[in-house]
Amino acid sequence: MQTDLPIALGLDFGTESVRAVLIDSEGNELGVASSSYAHGQIVDRLPTSQAQLPPRFALQAPLDWIESAAEATRLAVQQNGVSRDRIVGIGVDFTSCTMLPTLADGTPLCETESFQHTPLAWPKLWKHHGAIDQTDRMNRIARDRNESFLSRYGGIIGLEWFFPKVLETIELAPEVADAAEVWLEAGDWFVWQLVGCDAPSLPRSTCQAGYKALWSSEDGYANADYLAAVDPKLAEVAAKKMPGRLLSPGEKAGVLCEEMADRLGLPAGIAVSAATIDAHSGVPGVGEAESGTLVMVMGTSSCHMLNATKFQAVPGVAGIVDGGILPGLFGYETGQAAVGDAFAWLLKLLNLDSFDQLAKDALELPAGSEGVLCLDWMNGCRTPLMDGSVKGAFTGLSLDTTPAHLYRSLLEASAFGVRWIVDVLREGGIAVDRFVATGGLPHHNPAVVQIYADVLATEIEVHPSQQGPAIGAAVLGMFAAGPSRSGFETIGQAAQSMASVDDVDRKIVYPNLGDRETYNRVYQQYRCLADQTRRGES
Amino acid sequence: MQTDLPIALGLDFGTESVRAVLIDSEGNELGVASSSYAHGQIVDRLPTSQAQLPPRFALQAPLDWIESAAEATRLAVQQNGVSRDRIVGIGVDFTSCTMLPTLADGTPLCETESFQHTPLAWPKLWKHHGAIDQTDRMNRIARDRNESFLSRYGGIIGLEWFFPKVLETIELAPEVADAAEVWLEAGDWFVWQLVGCDAPSLPRSTCQAGYKALWSSEDGYANADYLAAVDPKLAEVAAKKMPGRLLSPGEKAGVLCEEMADRLGLPAGIAVSAATIDAHSGVPGVGEAESGTLVMVMGTSSCHMLNATKFQAVPGVAGIVDGGILPGLFGYETGQAAVGDAFAWLLKLLNLDSFDQLAKDALELPAGSEGVLCLDWMNGCRTPLMDGSVKGAFTGLSLDTTPAHLYRSLLEASAFGVRWIVDVLREGGIAVDRFVATGGLPHHNPAVVQIYADVLATEIEVHPSQQGPAIGAAVLGMFAAGPSRSGFETIGQAAQSMASVDDVDRKIVYPNLGDRETYNRVYQQYRCLADQTRRGES
Repeated sequence: MQTDLPIALGLDFGTESVRAVLIDSEGNELGVASSSYAHGQIVDRLPTSQAQLPPRFALQAPLDWIESAAEATRLAVQQNGVSRDRIVGIGVDFTSCTMLPTLADGTPLCETESFQHTPLAWPKLWKHHGAIDQTDRMNRIARDRNESFLSRYGGIIGLEWFFPKVLETIELAPEVADAAEVWLEAGDWFVWQLVGCDAPSLPRSTCQAGYKALWSSEDGYANADYLAAVDPKLAEVAAKKMPGRLLSPGEKAGVLCEEMADRLGLPAGIAVSAATIDAHSGVPGVGEAESGTLVMVMGTSSCHMLNATKFQAVPGVAGIVDGGILPGLFGYETGQAAVGDAFAWLLKLLNLDSFDQLAKDALELPAGSEGVLCLDWMNGCRTPLMDGSVKGAFTGLSLDTTPAHLYRSLLEASAFGVRWIVDVLREGGIAVDRFVATGGLPHHNPAVVQIYADVLATEIEVHPSQQGPAIGAAVLGMFAAGPSRSGFETIGQAAQSMASVDDVDRKIVYPNLGDRETYNRVYQQYRCLADQTRRGES
Repeated sequence: MQTDLPIALGLDFGTESVRAVLIDSEGNELGVASSSYAHGQIVDRLPTSQAQLPPRFALQAPLDWIESAAEATRLAVQQNGVSRDRIVGIGVDFTSCTMLPTLADGTPLCETESFQHTPLAWPKLWKHHGAIDQTDRMNRIARDRNESFLSRYGGIIGLEWFFPKVLETIELAPEVADAAEVWLEAGDWFVWQLVGCDAPSLPRSTCQAGYKALWSSEDGYANADYLAAVDPKLAEVAAKKMPGRLLSPGEKAGVLCEEMADRLGLPAGIAVSAATIDAHSGVPGVGEAESGTLVMVMGTSSCHMLNATKFQAVPGVAGIVDGGILPGLFGYETGQAAVGDAFAWLLKLLNLDSFDQLAKDALELPAGSEGVLCLDWMNGCRTPLMDGSVKGAFTGLSLDTTPAHLYRSLLEASAFGVRWIVDVLREGGIAVDRFVATGGLPHHNPAVVQIYADVLATEIEVHPSQQGPAIGAAVLGMFAAGPSRSGFETIGQAAQSMASVDDVDRKIVYPNLGDRETYNRVYQQYRCLADQTRRGES
């Protein structure tokens, strides 16, 4: 192993903790460490107050991010005694839309004397669901006005997105909204802290902006008339309180400032990439930087990401953003709202402790689960319906139905969900040629990948990394350092060299094509059940 | 207690055993005993052969019925030293359609040298499902010919009924069919043995004939042209191999002959009633002999029986028979294919051992199971669809759905199933004024009766007897003895005196009317789900 290869630091901010990885330009992992946030998810009460938070609130403490990042980075560096001077770039991926209001100097409002006790001044975690009414109204007005930006988002603004969260504060904590000088994503805030610039030039990610804040390179944030129709103060936020430069993930946001260099224990001056969303970071994280590969980041829920060379408004796709995943490509984000979550729910429902015997029994059943059919909407449907309110189902039940039938039909339903997404993309003219599965689930649960392969009638590559987003962040950080430091001319080169798998180590799951006819038939039944359920609930 | 009151013997032939009860004219139970059939259900191989039976076969051994009846009767008589001379009548209820071919002297064909090894010469138990193809063909031809008898059976001939079982033997064991001289129900065969007459005057029950053999008082067995269109040999069976007199349950079939008197240990000459079906026997068994009361015999499946003063072809009712339950009234039979069976299935599916905690948790949930909806067709739908092929479902599932949600929604679905039946009857102009629950389930599972009461928005009387059919048989036996022996002029008097509950002992479950609106709404959703499921499966 060469000892003078450049190294990048990837910082992967999850819901409970941050992970730091150090990877050199040939993909060798030189250190990995994580650190849990002191306050984790804040759902019961603020650290500063005894008052109970309202239901559906989920907040975080911004200083936790800095303290945990500093701890994880120091641990990762110490692990193998890596020379700090070889670190040429830092990449950051973050949960999204996790967002906060700050003063013009970057101080979070919740850190000020005035607002430390005000819940809506604190960072709202991605899963904060306080803005239900605001989201409904934003959607209604957008539909009434026939806003063209909706076509980039499958026709719907998500409950967890940026502007509904801003609007919630405008309406319910106007004093906070008035005091806010900057609204931004947590990932952007952290990058801002790293590079230490002034507000007008703070680096914002096209990824977060595009997928969560209605931004496009042509039109900016939705449009001012629309935002004003929702609330004039919302238009004012977009116009005056969202300063900064929009950069694609992998573009250089600046260099590490003295103050944060001290905190992290690194030399100042290291290149810092614009932030990205954690799931989207999985794409470079598995070495993919070309168009046509569906990267399936599978966990409690699944994000299925695809880069394409053209923009095509595909109905039901959660987001289409120019440079949203990587510079120079259109990033298509699709997803399934409950995957591992649904499997875990079923296991608990059936009063079982382990998937082992259940999976074995399920795989011994024939394709189609002997007529038991599942609709996997236990947490709503992301792509293509973008509707969190629809519910799941099991049909075809008889006195002979066993737990294995329910589990197999759920696995099949999850696979049909992916097939539907692929159909929607292809019908929209977007090529889907290759499938890569990553995230924790494909490793913990091989049965699901096999059934996905069978239902899709295609090979699926299972990427061995279980920390794809962190590695993706490191790839972005390396690329941001520029060719003279990193040796890479393109992000594709960096991803390929740092994150892809050698052919000998490649794990491919091959489809059983004997079940193809059966699955084609049952998939049509799944689509019928989906249609019926939608109609029934509306 | 008077010691000279007349006594009746009720013999209740179930699937595994026969029960004998002795009841006097005031309803005092003087003896009860049961005896399991030596060969039980014959599903694997004949007692005379090592050959494996085909799947879906379920047979019985006719001598078991006589031996077990003799044993149970002797035990019941001995229990309290009842004087045999006080026994004035015998009633018989039997599973149905359990049927067999015999010689003209009543010898079962399976007891002959020639056919003892031939499965299709043995009595077919009610649940024998070997005649699927035959049933389909009989239904198709009946529909094509627009046969009017279908209107008495909800438009469909059941897989478990008499003529499909005959046709199966005609087609698959023609030598048995040729040798058969008499085809008849097991209940009728047993009564025939009791009274010992010749074949032309053997007493047949209008109950079995009407509900299981397409018989009506006007037209006899379906019609000859139709049966000939199915198979000329089937028409020949109806014309020549089904001799006897048709009698309503409670009508006197004859008197106990010497040979059977010896077997049972009773004096010869006791009046014997025409047979009845076990479920139908539950109506007099709970003291009901008037029109307008729905007697819900609830167990693994449920039969809901109603007497009415008029005939009205109600779509989807499993059978409407003049004198089918009691003399002088039209008996309406409806049913649900899986009740206790479905509850037991869910318990096993959820890997639980007991209903106790599950029921407690389920009853704590609000009416409507928080949006979880069940379709209780785990064993098909009897009334009103008469379709054993349709399947069950759970919808409205989310990650918050618990075992208690599934169980409560199943209980509610079962109640909606009854409500649908009541709606169908009332829409057909048949009065349903009162509800009585009997059978084992209401006692083992009080939650289900409460939810039935809430969903129907009506009081339900739970009859305390857990052997309603046996008591009903005794009521019929008493009535058959005639007024000079029994003291009863009408069957209503006998039922009232022998089987109804004193007001002080009466258990009434009162409805919680606060949930009425909710249940009205969710019932409509249940009906929609039923419609969707039917359309989806067709």
